[in-house]
Amino acid sequence: MIQVAEALNIIAENSCKMPITKMKVSKSLGYVLAEAVYSPINMPPFRQSAMDGYAFTHGDLTQFEVVSTSQAGDFLDEKIQRNQAVRIFTGAFVPDDTDTVVMQEHTTRTDNLLQIEKMPAACANVREKGEQIKKGELVFDVNTVITPAAIGFLACLGITKIKVYQKPKVAILVTGNELVPAGNKLPKGKIYESNSLMIEAALQTIGIKKTTVFKVKDSLKKTIKAVESCLAHFDVVLISGGISVGDYDYVKEALLKNGVTELFYKINQKPGKPLFFGTKENKIVFALPGNPASSLTCFYVYAFPALKKMMGFEAIHLPEMKKKISTDFKNTSGKTLFLKALYGDEKVTVLESQSSAMLNTFAVANGLIVIPHDITHVMANQEVVVLPFN
Amino acid sequence: MIQVAEALNIIAENSCKMPITKMKVSKSLGYVLAEAVYSPINMPPFRQSAMDGYAFTHGDLTQFEVVSTSQAGDFLDEKIQRNQAVRIFTGAFVPDDTDTVVMQEHTTRTDNLLQIEKMPAACANVREKGEQIKKGELVFDVNTVITPAAIGFLACLGITKIKVYQKPKVAILVTGNELVPAGNKLPKGKIYESNSLMIEAALQTIGIKKTTVFKVKDSLKKTIKAVESCLAHFDVVLISGGISVGDYDYVKEALLKNGVTELFYKINQKPGKPLFFGTKENKIVFALPGNPASSLTCFYVYAFPALKKMMGFEAIHLPEMKKKISTDFKNTSGKTLFLKALYGDEKVTVLESQSSAMLNTFAVANGLIVIPHDITHVMANQEVVVLPFN
Repeated sequence: MIQVAEALNIIAENSCKMPITKMKVSKSLGYVLAEAVYSPINMPPFRQSAMDGYAFTHGDLTQFEVVSTSQAGDFLDEKIQRNQAVRIFTGAFVPDDTDTVVMQEHTTRTDNLLQIEKMPAACANVREKGEQIKKGELVFDVNTVITPAAIGFLACLGITKIKVYQKPKVAILVTGNELVPAGNKLPKGKIYESNSLMIEAALQTIGIKKTTVFKVKDSLKKTIKAVESCLAHFDVVLISGGISVGDYDYVKEALLKNGVTELFYKINQKPGKPLFFGTKENKIVFALPGNPASSLTCFYVYAFPALKKMMGFEAIHLPEMKKKISTDFKNTSGKTLFLKALYGDEKVTVLESQSSAMLNTFAVANGLIVIPHDITHVMANQEVVVLPFN
Repeated sequence: MIQVAEALNIIAENSCKMPITKMKVSKSLGYVLAEAVYSPINMPPFRQSAMDGYAFTHGDLTQFEVVSTSQAGDFLDEKIQRNQAVRIFTGAFVPDDTDTVVMQEHTTRTDNLLQIEKMPAACANVREKGEQIKKGELVFDVNTVITPAAIGFLACLGITKIKVYQKPKVAILVTGNELVPAGNKLPKGKIYESNSLMIEAALQTIGIKKTTVFKVKDSLKKTIKAVESCLAHFDVVLISGGISVGDYDYVKEALLKNGVTELFYKINQKPGKPLFFGTKENKIVFALPGNPASSLTCFYVYAFPALKKMMGFEAIHLPEMKKKISTDFKNTSGKTLFLKALYGDEKVTVLESQSSAMLNTFAVANGLIVIPHDITHVMANQEVVVLPFN
C-alpha cells in the first residue's frame, strides 16, 4: 500500500503523451498544441484605422477636401494630396499617402470641406501593419491549450490546421453479476448499473466525448477476454468494480494475465483504497473501486491527471485551493481522506454523508477536502487544501 | 449609455427560461432540472453487505457452520439457523435470517467451521434497505444542475429520463465586407473572419455544441433579411460587428426593422462599449462589437449569463474571486474596465496589451479584472474582483 503523493507521481511518470495529429482549428477547443505555431501573415495585414473618422497627412493644415471613402474591406489605391482627406471607418485600409486618422467627433464637415477642430497627434488612430504580430513571429508555443480566444487568434491569422496531441480513446469496463441496466425490472439482490454513465459524463467534462462501454459478468474467463479486447483497441481502460479482495473479484488476475504491469494496487486513503494502476506499453489501466462515490473520487484524483498528461497538458492535476474549514475535524484513520465538501469564497464545509456508496453527497458537493494521512486533527478555521470539480 | 451593473440586471430580467423537455439521463450532463425527481426505489433496494465476510445472527455464539454463499447479485432464499453463517461479499444480499456481517479478516475458517475472533457490534457492516434514499423521497430538487455524480445517482435509482430546460438554439451572424474565410488568399484591405469560430468555441464551453453561422455583407437589405431568418429559427442571435456608429453599420437598424426591442445600446465600459441587447418575444439578441477581444469580453460578461439563465441555471454570472493586484493601476477613463489578466493563488497581474483588437493577450489570460467606473486608482496589493474563465 502506498501513499497518495507516491501514487500521483507514479501516474504522472507512466502516462505518456498521445501521438500527434493534424486538427482543424475549428475543432480544436481543449486540445494541446504539439508544435509551435508561427504567423503566416502580418496582423493587421495593412495599416488599419482604429476609428471612424478621416485619414489625412499630419502637418500644418487643418482644412481638407474629402476626396474619397475607405470602408472596411476596401483597398483605396488613389493618390491622396496633402490638402486632401479620406472618409474612413474602423478597421479600414489607411491609404498609403496618409498617416493619421482624426475621430469624426473632432471634425466639422460641410459638403466635401473638412475642418479638424481638435488635431490628433501625428500617426494617431492608425494601427501599424504587423502591430499585433509580424509574419514569422511566434503565435503560440508548443503545449499551449487551445481556448476560445486562441481559436479566434489562429483564425484571424488565416490558420486552418494545427498539430495537437490526440485525445486518448477510452474504454469503460463494468464488472459485476449484481448489475442491471436502468430501464429494466430490478430482481432481488441486484442493483442498477450507474458507474459507466457517471464516468462517461466525467470524461466529457475534460473533453473526451466518445467512450465505449463493455459489461462483463464475474467470470475470470470473460473478464480476461474483455480486458484483452479493451487493450487491443483503446489507449485507456477504466474498469469499474471487481478489484477488492473478494473471492469473486477477478479483475486483477485478468489484468496480469493480459500482460498489464502492476504499478500500484491499494492506496492509503479513504475512500478508494483498492485502486489499481498499471500499464501495457503506452496504454494505461485503472481499476476503480465499484462503490460509486469511491469510483468518482479516484477518477478525479487519479484518472483525470493521467488523461490530461496523455492529452499534452502541463498542469494535469485538479487545481488546489486553500479554504478555511468550518468545523473541527479528526482523522483517526491514518489514511489520507478525500472529503466531499462545499466551498464558498473563504470557507469550506465537510458534507454530512461521506459513505463510499453514497453519490447524493457527491452530487451536491463542489470540491474534495484533502486531509493528509499524517494529520490527525484539523481545527475550525484552519486552512485546508480543496480540490474543486464540476 | 448605462453602467455595467444596470446592463447585467436588464439581461437577467429579460432572459427567459427555455421550454422544458424530457431528456435521457445519459445525455443530460450540464442541463438543469425543470422538475423535482423522487426515488422510484429504495436504495439500497435490500439489506446489503458493506464488507467481504460472513453474515450471521448476532448473539452469544462465536462459532458457526458456513452453509451457503451470497455473492453480489445473488438472492439467497434459504432458511439460516442461529448457529449457521453465510459467506458474503461486498454489495451482496444479506439473508433475511441474519443481521450482522463480520469482516473476513476477523475470522478463522476450517472447512465449513467459522470462528469469529473479533465480534462486531450487532447489525455491523449491513447497509439497511433505503439507507441512502427511500422510495418516494426527493432525489434532486428543481434547478439542480446535472453533474457526473448526479447522473450516477439518477442511474443507480433506475431513472432513465428526466425533465430539463432545453438549451437555446444559437445563431451567430457575422457582418462585414472586410471579412474573408480562413483558408483563402487575403486581398488587400481584407482580414480573416475569426469571431464566428471564437464564439462557437466559447458557446461549447457552456455546453452549447451546435451553432449555426450566417455571414452577410455590409448591406442594409441583406442584414435585415439575415436577422429575420435568425429570429425565425433561433432562440438567441449573436451578431458580430456592424454595431458601431460608422455609416456602414446597419445592424441596429436591421434589428429595429425586425421588431427587436432595444433594451440597451452602449455600456460605460472598456472594451465593448457599443454592445446592443434586445428582445423579440422570448428571443434575445446581442450585437457584439466586431473587435475580437471586445467581442469575447462581452460574450463572457453579458451573453454567458443570459444563456445560463435560459438554460435554467440559478448562478448565471462568471464566479467572482478576490485577488491582490500586483501593481498600481490608474483608471482615468470614467469607464468600467475589464482587463485581461493572469491570476495565481493570491495575486493577479494585468497583462500588457489590452487593445480591443488583440486576441493574443486573451489567449494567455485566465481571467478579467474588473475596475469599476468610479474607481480612479487601485494600489498594488489592493484586492480587486477577478472573473475567471476557460
